[in-house]
Amino acid sequence: MLLRFTKMHGLGNDFMVLDLVSQHAHIQPKHAKQWGDRHTGIGFDQLLIVEPPSNPDVDFRYRIFNADGSEVEQCGNGARCFARFVLDKRLTVKKRIRVETKSGIIELDVRPDGQVCVDMGPPRLEPKGIPFQAEAAALAYSVEVDGRTVELAALSMGNPHAVLRVDDVESAPVHALGPKLENHPRFPQRVNVGFLQVVDRQHARLRVWERGAGETQACGTGACAAAVAAIRQGWMDSPVLIDLPGGRLSIAWAGPGQSVMMTGPAVRVYEGQVRL
Amino acid sequence: MLLRFTKMHGLGNDFMVLDLVSQHAHIQPKHAKQWGDRHTGIGFDQLLIVEPPSNPDVDFRYRIFNADGSEVEQCGNGARCFARFVLDKRLTVKKRIRVETKSGIIELDVRPDGQVCVDMGPPRLEPKGIPFQAEAAALAYSVEVDGRTVELAALSMGNPHAVLRVDDVESAPVHALGPKLENHPRFPQRVNVGFLQVVDRQHARLRVWERGAGETQACGTGACAAAVAAIRQGWMDSPVLIDLPGGRLSIAWAGPGQSVMMTGPAVRVYEGQVRL
Repeated sequence: MLLRFTKMHGLGNDFMVLDLVSQHAHIQPKHAKQWGDRHTGIGFDQLLIVEPPSNPDVDFRYRIFNADGSEVEQCGNGARCFARFVLDKRLTVKKRIRVETKSGIIELDVRPDGQVCVDMGPPRLEPKGIPFQAEAAALAYSVEVDGRTVELAALSMGNPHAVLRVDDVESAPVHALGPKLENHPRFPQRVNVGFLQVVDRQHARLRVWERGAGETQACGTGACAAAVAAIRQGWMDSPVLIDLPGGRLSIAWAGPGQSVMMTGPAVRVYEGQVRL
Repeated sequence: MLLRFTKMHGLGNDFMVLDLVSQHAHIQPKHAKQWGDRHTGIGFDQLLIVEPPSNPDVDFRYRIFNADGSEVEQCGNGARCFARFVLDKRLTVKKRIRVETKSGIIELDVRPDGQVCVDMGPPRLEPKGIPFQAEAAALAYSVEVDGRTVELAALSMGNPHAVLRVDDVESAPVHALGPKLENHPRFPQRVNVGFLQVVDRQHARLRVWERGAGETQACGTGACAAAVAAIRQGWMDSPVLIDLPGGRLSIAWAGPGQSVMMTGPAVRVYEGQVRL
């Protein structure tokens, strides 16, 4: 059978988006691997599958797979592409969409300018929920790396994040320190590592070392985690603009217990048809 | 406007193929750059544009562009994809197709098993036509690299090639010697560098350092050049099977003045539509 798909990207994080609401197919990890190859397949960072909801409280369910076939918990860039996709494809007429993901229910707003605001849910700040090994929750933690002490914030946005403040993102030790913190024993499920340069109280620059992927152009949950850390520490005021190598996100957060609101672009690149 | 395209590959060398016979559009280098980006665009090694012929002796004209917008002279993998494309799209009913390329007219045969045989034209063996700086044509040349002497064959398949025989392609100094020979002053238009391991008289293994691209999975003209060099030196007998990292090609050559016949696969991956 021929499957219709749409290729999209959010800040250069690119997705093959499959509508399995109006199309019926059984997608297996081998398909993600085959399609994910950038030379012999379609090529993507992640495959995003849109499905009917499993309960009446939500409008859709989506699942995200890496090109190696593994499933991803949460992806802010993917969430924005999902919202544009279901509107563009007229799978819904709602501008505010509730969707079930592997890490819980999220809400999405498509704004008149086409940017998408994603309710990323509240951050989890207690160490157990990150997970991070610490006696008690704190604004910042000291972590030993190769005999040096690194100061970082730790929190979960559905996936674990460490955030380090640096003077200059260009010269930040992303490739040296990123993999060491990613695999640090105090993060039992490993961690994404953000290097944050505060420019002023509303504007920052960020580079992210992603768990299992290395440095990426734009990590949506990483931008949320960095904004939460900076607002909690009193360095910045909500809403904040975060410049990632792939582009800009706006992040708003009203404080503990409140949802992190992430706004950014979602771009449709082309429509495709592939034989299953 | 919406442009239809097809994504194809030949041994992992991948192409966005555009039919500008039945569609009308003015494609500029900026489009190749935009579409060539593997994250924000369609992603390809080369953009292959199929056009009506400029004279009645040929069936089509095609042009090939790199993702940086520069035009490519000749591409064996692209030629095979072109032939499958014009048949699949019913732009012709001929199984033997004559096509005008930047480096001359070539002929293509689509075989019943779907493999495509490309008449790559005769090799140019005289130094001036390669271009290569040497007193006279020879089977092999000695070239000085960093004070060491390297023995190589030199010839043109529409683009310049140097071929070195090695005992084992796995351990061949592709990344050390490739870029040095590519930019060697005796090759004024630079050169593609093939490292050939002769397995037996009909079977060889090959790795190619491509001019401007580095090591690639499968260089069609490189396989032709290596086969010509091996047949001329008396190491192998036509037809020869050449195993490249991306897959296998069969090369036949009857001797000086005769065309090199290259046979190999061409795979259609998906159909797409993109806004121009």
